[in-house]
Amino acid sequence: MIPRIESGIPGFDELTRPNNGTGGIPENTATLIYGPSKTGKSIFTNQFTYKGLKNDEPCLYITTDNGYKQFKTNMDEFNWPIEKYLDNNTLYLIDTISDVSEGKPKQSESFIQSYINNPTDIMVKVGSGVNYIYKNNHRFRSVLDSATTLLAYNENMLIIRVLKAYLMRVNEAGGTPIIAYTEESADSIVETMLKSMVDNIIRVDGENLYIEAMKGIGKRSSPYQIKDNGIVL
Amino acid sequence: MIPRIESGIPGFDELTRPNNGTGGIPENTATLIYGPSKTGKSIFTNQFTYKGLKNDEPCLYITTDNGYKQFKTNMDEFNWPIEKYLDNNTLYLIDTISDVSEGKPKQSESFIQSYINNPTDIMVKVGSGVNYIYKNNHRFRSVLDSATTLLAYNENMLIIRVLKAYLMRVNEAGGTPIIAYTEESADSIVETMLKSMVDNIIRVDGENLYIEAMKGIGKRSSPYQIKDNGIVL
Amino acid sequence: MIPRIESGIPGFDELTRPNNGTGGIPENTATLIYGPSKTGKSIFTNQFTYKGLKNDEPCLYITTDNGYKQFKTNMDEFNWPIEKYLDNNTLYLIDTISDVSEGKPKQSESFIQSYINNPTDIMVKVGSGVNYIYKNNHRFRSVLDSATTLLAYNENMLIIRVLKAYLMRVNEAGGTPIIAYTEESADSIVETMLKSMVDNIIRVDGENLYIEAMKGIGKRSSPYQIKDNGIVL
Amino acid sequence: MIPRIESGIPGFDELTRPNNGTGGIPENTATLIYGPSKTGKSIFTNQFTYKGLKNDEPCLYITTDNGYKQFKTNMDEFNWPIEKYLDNNTLYLIDTISDVSEGKPKQSESFIQSYINNPTDIMVKVGSGVNYIYKNNHRFRSVLDSATTLLAYNENMLIIRVLKAYLMRVNEAGGTPIIAYTEESADSIVETMLKSMVDNIIRVDGENLYIEAMKGIGKRSSPYQIKDNGIVL
Amino acid sequence: MIPRIESGIPGFDELTRPNNGTGGIPENTATLIYGPSKTGKSIFTNQFTYKGLKNDEPCLYITTDNGYKQFKTNMDEFNWPIEKYLDNNTLYLIDTISDVSEGKPKQSESFIQSYINNPTDIMVKVGSGVNYIYKNNHRFRSVLDSATTLLAYNENMLIIRVLKAYLMRVNEAGGTPIIAYTEESADSIVETMLKSMVDNIIRVDGENLYIEAMKGIGKRSSPYQIKDNGIVL
Amino acid sequence: MIPRIESGIPGFDELTRPNNGTGGIPENTATLIYGPSKTGKSIFTNQFTYKGLKNDEPCLYITTDNGYKQFKTNMDEFNWPIEKYLDNNTLYLIDTISDVSEGKPKQSESFIQSYINNPTDIMVKVGSGVNYIYKNNHRFRSVLDSATTLLAYNENMLIIRVLKAYLMRVNEAGGTPIIAYTEESADSIVETMLKSMVDNIIRVDGENLYIEAMKGIGKRSSPYQIKDNGIVL
Repeated sequence: MIPRIESGIPGFDELTRPNNGTGGIPENTATLIYGPSKTGKSIFTNQFTYKGLKNDEPCLYITTDNGYKQFKTNMDEFNWPIEKYLDNNTLYLIDTISDVSEGKPKQSESFIQSYINNPTDIMVKVGSGVNYIYKNNHRFRSVLDSATTLLAYNENMLIIRVLKAYLMRVNEAGGTPIIAYTEESADSIVETMLKSMVDNIIRVDGENLYIEAMKGIGKRSSPYQIKDNGIVL
Repeated sequence: MIPRIESGIPGFDELTRPNNGTGGIPENTATLIYGPSKTGKSIFTNQFTYKGLKNDEPCLYITTDNGYKQFKTNMDEFNWPIEKYLDNNTLYLIDTISDVSEGKPKQSESFIQSYINNPTDIMVKVGSGVNYIYKNNHRFRSVLDSATTLLAYNENMLIIRVLKAYLMRVNEAGGTPIIAYTEESADSIVETMLKSMVDNIIRVDGENLYIEAMKGIGKRSSPYQIKDNGIVL
Repeated sequence: MIPRIESGIPGFDELTRPNNGTGGIPENTATLIYGPSKTGKSIFTNQFTYKGLKNDEPCLYITTDNGYKQFKTNMDEFNWPIEKYLDNNTLYLIDTISDVSEGKPKQSESFIQSYINNPTDIMVKVGSGVNYIYKNNHRFRSVLDSATTLLAYNENMLIIRVLKAYLMRVNEAGGTPIIAYTEESADSIVETMLKSMVDNIIRVDGENLYIEAMKGIGKRSSPYQIKDNGIVL
Repeated sequence: MIPRIESGIPGFDELTRPNNGTGGIPENTATLIYGPSKTGKSIFTNQFTYKGLKNDEPCLYITTDNGYKQFKTNMDEFNWPIEKYLDNNTLYLIDTISDVSEGKPKQSESFIQSYINNPTDIMVKVGSGVNYIYKNNHRFRSVLDSATTLLAYNENMLIIRVLKAYLMRVNEAGGTPIIAYTEESADSIVETMLKSMVDNIIRVDGENLYIEAMKGIGKRSSPYQIKDNGIVL
Repeated sequence: MIPRIESGIPGFDELTRPNNGTGGIPENTATLIYGPSKTGKSIFTNQFTYKGLKNDEPCLYITTDNGYKQFKTNMDEFNWPIEKYLDNNTLYLIDTISDVSEGKPKQSESFIQSYINNPTDIMVKVGSGVNYIYKNNHRFRSVLDSATTLLAYNENMLIIRVLKAYLMRVNEAGGTPIIAYTEESADSIVETMLKSMVDNIIRVDGENLYIEAMKGIGKRSSPYQIKDNGIVL
Repeated sequence: MIPRIESGIPGFDELTRPNNGTGGIPENTATLIYGPSKTGKSIFTNQFTYKGLKNDEPCLYITTDNGYKQFKTNMDEFNWPIEKYLDNNTLYLIDTISDVSEGKPKQSESFIQSYINNPTDIMVKVGSGVNYIYKNNHRFRSVLDSATTLLAYNENMLIIRVLKAYLMRVNEAGGTPIIAYTEESADSIVETMLKSMVDNIIRVDGENLYIEAMKGIGKRSSPYQIKDNGIVL
């Protein structure tokens, strides 16, 4: 029986409940969430992040689509305040994109700046981040939002290899990683490889959430809506 | 509740009205308007620009399809005179294309020449433009018309990154940017990435205007016509 | 109200008549005529050229498909003699292709040799041609027949940029340019960009002529035939 | 009225007869014959060649698919002996392919060796061949069989330019050239460009011969068979 | 009559039984198992591996998707313990991927580290592995799981050549190799070549297992499920 | 009337019988056999080879898919022993692939090693082989099995040119060559070019054998099976 961690998405843990035991995201496995743009992928990963933080599970968050300021705005929109988790270093944030707009957020022990066009630097800092978190807690979450922007700034197959390394590093340290990806923002071979690297595949299309694959259960689906408290199934 | 700014397009603010509050373009979010050629995308952005100017909101306008002369002709066609806004520096115009035809419009504090084949220079001047406007007014509009010509003169993924930086810079300064793009003037991956970078997506096909995505509301659509006073829904 | 110039094609000016005023090609706008091979695109542009010459409007003609000899043969086939217009310098001919067959037509003030595989040289000579014509007459026509051969001899995106510059140069000097292009002789992105650069789009398929877009009017179409006096709608 | 030359293919001149006058291949125009492999394209061009030789019209023949030995075998198969025409120099043969198999046919005044992978050399020798023939006879035929092999040995757009130059050179000297091409042996853009360079387009599919375009007549078609005396409509 | 070896998959040997004799995987032939991601390809190859080990047939296993730790976890999930086979050197493991996550498993006589992005090193170590096993046992199994990750880290045609060499080396030494591959993780030409290199082709789609080709029998298929003891037909 | 040679495939010579005379493979013409993988293409060419050897016609065999050992196994499977023909030098074997697996078969006068990734070396050795055979016998067979592996190891258009040279060399020496090719293992342009280079085209799909083109007859087809004595129509 694979242990599960609470997703934080109302209805999701019920949808993914196996025949016996509880549902949720299978712990220490890798998940891909993908779908067209504007369907709530980032909301899902943010909701997953906030649930973990509230449960005292640290989170290693790599943001490639939004700088810190916009990330915070997006969290605040759903009333998910993140400052205190940054302050107590349970949210470990690698911001790879603020540099693009020349914004210069102050750095701290758990607030690290990296560069979207420098995957090597990102991997080094992911490595440090995993080590930092791992020292205190062998159960943690990790989010990379999203692969799409990494693909825009770098050669595709290089990013496939970076994401493979990211997933392996987090998994080996006991963490539970999620990658978000905008459907068709790379060629179909990249998408197939992304899917072949993870254990669980979730697709959202604006109306339904599909469990295309998940450790321990078969294919399932449910309608969903985006409400004031995030995604609700 | 996200504040909205008046689009200037008759019928558009009604179409985009959320359940409570007023409609229009959500302030400080990024918008893409796209569709086939000759469907009124530039008219939409020009109408949006002129409305802002009349409302005392400055506008940072990057023109890549038409030089100043043609831009002015296009505005005059709908009786939207722009000279006084250039004179009082509330219209900040970055003209990246006049150089191509060796026309040499005089430069001024708010009338800047750049080069369609030099995205670095464009970004530097966008940066200066944002700073110039931001000093006086934290609420402003910005238009880039259009991504298509930038793509013709430069490598595609480079332009995706330039547009990402453009949107982030304007958003961080409090502005509300719109990008116009001719459908299928780049491969589908570029289009998917463009859509994933913005908050709002508007498509026009010559007969209907579709809100494919917009902060705070669902999908909507309305027929439209191009009349003497611009686009009318 | 945009002024119109006579196309010279029987039936065309009637087809393109707006609600009020006369039809024809909108003056000082850019036109694309395209369609499969052998459908009369060159005949259309030649007919347009000859009409202008007869009306005392000079014409800047860039020939890329046929050398002077074949161009003259094509004109003679429809009884459109051009020698006197070359002699009085109202036909300004840039012959980019005779060089390929090592034919060496004598050059004159208004008969200029250029090279199909040297777009920079073509642009320099277009610049000189525009200046030459502009000194005497601010109303003139210009034809580039065709983009297809330019695309065969040069990198596609370079030609898109050359055509953009060509259209801007002619438009700024007050001229009315037409570009001919064989459908599907470049990838669909090139075609989309060509269409996005012009104001008017005409398609011919051997049986019908379609006004896909034109300043001041909506979509229209008419059957046509190629007769002894050229295209007749 | 465009003069016509006898094709030599039974039924073809009847099929292509205009309203008044006689049918055949329009003199001094360029023709493309294309279709799938094994449908008789080479037989058509050989038949056309032999008819000219019998009518005392010289022929400039560029062979790229078969060396001299196989070319002669193919002609003999239909009882079209060519030796005497080589001897009296009315058949001017440029053999670009025998070199590949290290066969070394003796050269003569009108039997020239060239190299399939050296388009510049081919063009130089086409130039010499045209000059050689032109001195004695301003009416001549020319065949290039086939573009397909040239495309296999060289960059595609280079061959488009070589074929353009070939057609122009022959046409300016008064000759009537035909190019054979195997359908879909290059991408569709190459095919479109081939079609846009010629005046007449003939397609054969093993069952029917289609006149897709020909100076002075509209689209026509006829079934055909390959018999002991060649193609018969 | 080709000898068969037990697959270890309940029902598979029955499905593949020829008219006379026993079923299973034909000995000393090459097999490809492919299908979409998450359909049990790795489970199949692991089951095949464990069956061999239990039957005292050594196995040369090249792991490219999972490092040793994850490989062991995957085997344990189905209660297939592998440690003792590593200890007695009948499981010869080439781990090409642990290096990516900087995990450093200890090496031993039969536990070899290689590098996913260094196909030459992999081939050298495959060579050593085959020699090591061959000294003691001319009947052995070999698994490469999977080609997909090799393709992500290297140029496609290079991997086709590496896989060809891998299959030939194992076959010549008397072994029976299986390659796993995620459908559509490379272009269709790569897939066609993979299929042309092997003797047996098995496809799994999550619901059915298809024998698309196998030495000695025709096409066959059967539904399957993934149970606690692995794949069951 | 083109002479025919016995194919060795029961039923094939009947299928290909022209109106008068006997069937079989037309002598001194080039044949392509193609189709999906695992449909018996190699069996066909091996059967053709063995028939020739039994008829005292030498055979030049270029093996690119299987090394000598596997080639011999494949022949033995159908009881077609080849050793004595290697010993009496009527089977001239160019083994381009054993080198890949580091197997080192002894060389002899008619057993030559070459290298799959060195087409120049292959062509030199084909040249020597043709000369060797030609000295004693102007009637011989030749097989290249298969083009697919050559395409995997080399640039596609280079292989098209190598195959063209191979066919010309064998044909000029009086031989009858066959090339095997796995359908869709290269792009469609390569396939079209392969077809345009040969005289006869045979397709097998596992159930039917289609004569798509053959000198002297039209399209024909027949079901076939793979039996103990090879392919039987």
